[in-house]
Amino acid sequence: MSMLAAVKMPLYLKLARSLEEQMGRGVLRPGERLPSVRSFSRQQGVSISTVLEAYMWLENRGAIESRPKSGFFVRVAFAKSVPEPRFQTPEPRPASFRAGDIVAEVVRSANQPGSIPLGSALPDPQLLPNGKLNQILRSVIRRDPCHSSSYCFPPGTENLRRQIARRSLAYGCNLAPSEIVVTTGAMEALNLGLRAVARADDVIAVESPTYFGVLLAIQSLGMRAIEIPTHPREGMSLDWLESAIRKHRIKACVSMTNGHNPLGYVLPDDYKKELAELTARHDVALIEDNIYGELAFGARQPKVAKAFDRKGNVLLCASFSKVLAPGFRVGWMHAGRYQAEVERLKFINTVATASLPQFVLAEFLESGGFDRYVSRLRIAFAEQVRVMSQAVAKYFPEGTRITRPDAGYVLWVELPKKVDALKLFRAALAANISIVPGPIFSTTGRFSNYVRVSCGYRWSDAIDRALLTLGRAADDLVRDS
Amino acid sequence: MSMLAAVKMPLYLKLARSLEEQMGRGVLRPGERLPSVRSFSRQQGVSISTVLEAYMWLENRGAIESRPKSGFFVRVAFAKSVPEPRFQTPEPRPASFRAGDIVAEVVRSANQPGSIPLGSALPDPQLLPNGKLNQILRSVIRRDPCHSSSYCFPPGTENLRRQIARRSLAYGCNLAPSEIVVTTGAMEALNLGLRAVARADDVIAVESPTYFGVLLAIQSLGMRAIEIPTHPREGMSLDWLESAIRKHRIKACVSMTNGHNPLGYVLPDDYKKELAELTARHDVALIEDNIYGELAFGARQPKVAKAFDRKGNVLLCASFSKVLAPGFRVGWMHAGRYQAEVERLKFINTVATASLPQFVLAEFLESGGFDRYVSRLRIAFAEQVRVMSQAVAKYFPEGTRITRPDAGYVLWVELPKKVDALKLFRAALAANISIVPGPIFSTTGRFSNYVRVSCGYRWSDAIDRALLTLGRAADDLVRDS
Repeated sequence: MSMLAAVKMPLYLKLARSLEEQMGRGVLRPGERLPSVRSFSRQQGVSISTVLEAYMWLENRGAIESRPKSGFFVRVAFAKSVPEPRFQTPEPRPASFRAGDIVAEVVRSANQPGSIPLGSALPDPQLLPNGKLNQILRSVIRRDPCHSSSYCFPPGTENLRRQIARRSLAYGCNLAPSEIVVTTGAMEALNLGLRAVARADDVIAVESPTYFGVLLAIQSLGMRAIEIPTHPREGMSLDWLESAIRKHRIKACVSMTNGHNPLGYVLPDDYKKELAELTARHDVALIEDNIYGELAFGARQPKVAKAFDRKGNVLLCASFSKVLAPGFRVGWMHAGRYQAEVERLKFINTVATASLPQFVLAEFLESGGFDRYVSRLRIAFAEQVRVMSQAVAKYFPEGTRITRPDAGYVLWVELPKKVDALKLFRAALAANISIVPGPIFSTTGRFSNYVRVSCGYRWSDAIDRALLTLGRAADDLVRDS
Repeated sequence: MSMLAAVKMPLYLKLARSLEEQMGRGVLRPGERLPSVRSFSRQQGVSISTVLEAYMWLENRGAIESRPKSGFFVRVAFAKSVPEPRFQTPEPRPASFRAGDIVAEVVRSANQPGSIPLGSALPDPQLLPNGKLNQILRSVIRRDPCHSSSYCFPPGTENLRRQIARRSLAYGCNLAPSEIVVTTGAMEALNLGLRAVARADDVIAVESPTYFGVLLAIQSLGMRAIEIPTHPREGMSLDWLESAIRKHRIKACVSMTNGHNPLGYVLPDDYKKELAELTARHDVALIEDNIYGELAFGARQPKVAKAFDRKGNVLLCASFSKVLAPGFRVGWMHAGRYQAEVERLKFINTVATASLPQFVLAEFLESGGFDRYVSRLRIAFAEQVRVMSQAVAKYFPEGTRITRPDAGYVLWVELPKKVDALKLFRAALAANISIVPGPIFSTTGRFSNYVRVSCGYRWSDAIDRALLTLGRAADDLVRDS
């Protein structure tokens, strides 16, 4: 039996997705009223809270809206005619990443001053709590003038680790402060994780597509990646993963179970449990990247695979870069049975993470406004994702396919086969627009007709024009080829 | 002919060292007046400025003092009876570092609250310009409330790179801002350098002893270190280095030419030139760690081997951790022909270095007070080194040998053969004193009767008592064995 079939979707999500499907098919039209919570609960034979969760999920995604005293209404005919990207299943083989030069070009382009920022997966600075963070900064400086005159040696400052541990209940864990290691962003955590569990020439299983930073880190350490076929909504195939583990000596698997970059999905708990168990069974380390976990559009913050870790083989990596302050460069990890090794490697790699940002984040989290803030942020991003999806659907060539993110702020766009994503990336750059070309999300040169578009910035006329320009450039590439 | 013999010492240093020798032998006694600058210049047939440089060097080291209108006087009979550590020349062989567990113990001990800090090579927080840095911090926050809401992508913020380039004239370089990559401390720079020039199983030449962080980084990347015999005053033997390069496939050499950790020497320009040329000739990358370069006690800031780099094979690493703000975690490197690769690896390793510390350091350097500040700091450290050397000489067992640092703030102490440095380290820990045991400065288990003692903290009764306690513990170990 397929393991994927065995993975159960939460009830509320099933309900929500069947409603979304009805909207997609035009069964429920924009402006129409949804069944009342009470009647829908009776009709479906589920609890009222399940219906409420389903409606909140749809509301967070911008698909429906609640009107006071009237109920819930369909807001838009989102993506009626735009399907999701296709599921590809090429046979996995270990390979080295060779697109480093293009990544360098992409990073440089993300730096280009004044460009329309659809490239880097970064939040709009205007959405971040800069005022509050600065207020805390000032008070830390006043209270402790010597804040930066020594190192916060690994594992990092205790107050921050305590706050991180406290929050871990929200995603199904109960981590101890002493088990957490503060890192210079999740990228350092990923590097430390790989260095702790594998050596040069070892094989690391990854999703396909996956964030190019993962492929770069694997390659720069002399390791090879093996890409496991990944469904754009249901995640990496656990069947394919298990068969790859049987065939190749795989040391670790890197996975983003919440807010996958670039696919945007959030996987159900049962999937995460199965993934944790499967990797534990085969003694494969699971490096779980949860940097978008806080930005899931659902009613509840999703669990992580770490929550189902019984053998200590899950290395959970996270960061404050995507939700609070990218420039602070503070991330963290819980490395299970690899903790001592990770702590040692943290010292070797950068000695310590900058002190001041750690002190400020600890106080911000302690002050208690984080939950309120982040739920507003989620709604803002869900809205940005919705609006940008519509614009892409409107401007991009016939045959374009777009993901439906459950979290985060990136869209993965499949263009007609004829469109060369690298050419589109360079045409965009010439028009001062940054996007990320698909081929750097794979070691195999696949995804040559895909691009990643970031929705991190607030919608504006400039972004609207940029998407129109991109759409026209893509049209040209369809015609020229 | 020996290459070491070919290395010329600057004239002023020769003069200064011959005077120092006379003081050591009691030819010149405490309180005695040195020859006047004019007469000494005539007598030696050298220029007045050379004599002045020699006297300033001795003054910075605390050996003499100038009295207004009277001339220069011998201040102390420093180290009359305490010789320098011995020069050991075992045959170099590639080896893996195995003392990782002890390092973990040492780092934890450095963290122990309330301990007497003779372990970590860190400056006393009271000596750092915290007030000025905080003032700039506040003004940056006021001017740019979104300071941390995006990344300073590699190579780092331009203002800081410009300031670093401007200062590079002081140590014989003329670096361009575009050639500099900002890193998360010099430790990240070292990691990036190693990853850029070598792969797993490659052999890296290092000084012996060398900073344990260097050995840890090499080992954690699956590389092997080969230790080149290193004279406690004249540095790594270039003859031994060349013969090791001929015998083993050495990919890189890591060297600290200024303020060696733990030996404290500053090598002459000719040595640096020879080292740069030798490595270039054999196509070996030279990773030069200059974190103590600003803290040389001499009259002039010493040059770096980078100043003699004609082929782009020198990767110069530096940091602000030892002179301004350890907790900022800002270092930098100039990677010569490896620059593109280092920039790429910087993105892979930590994406970016924290933004705010970069902005603050750039302004601090631009504001111009740095030179004045750092020359006061040098004098403070020279004095701390002098006082602590005397205390070690007074309290430690007969047969103890101590380095005479030219820069920085660590002492390398050779104890009688019978003293087991690990036992001394643990006895110290039990008395709440942190020091660093010698064996972690080597892959070979050598230096089992050496310890490194940091003089970073201002002299106090507590430090005096701690050194007395250490001396007694060492006495016990001599007797017990």
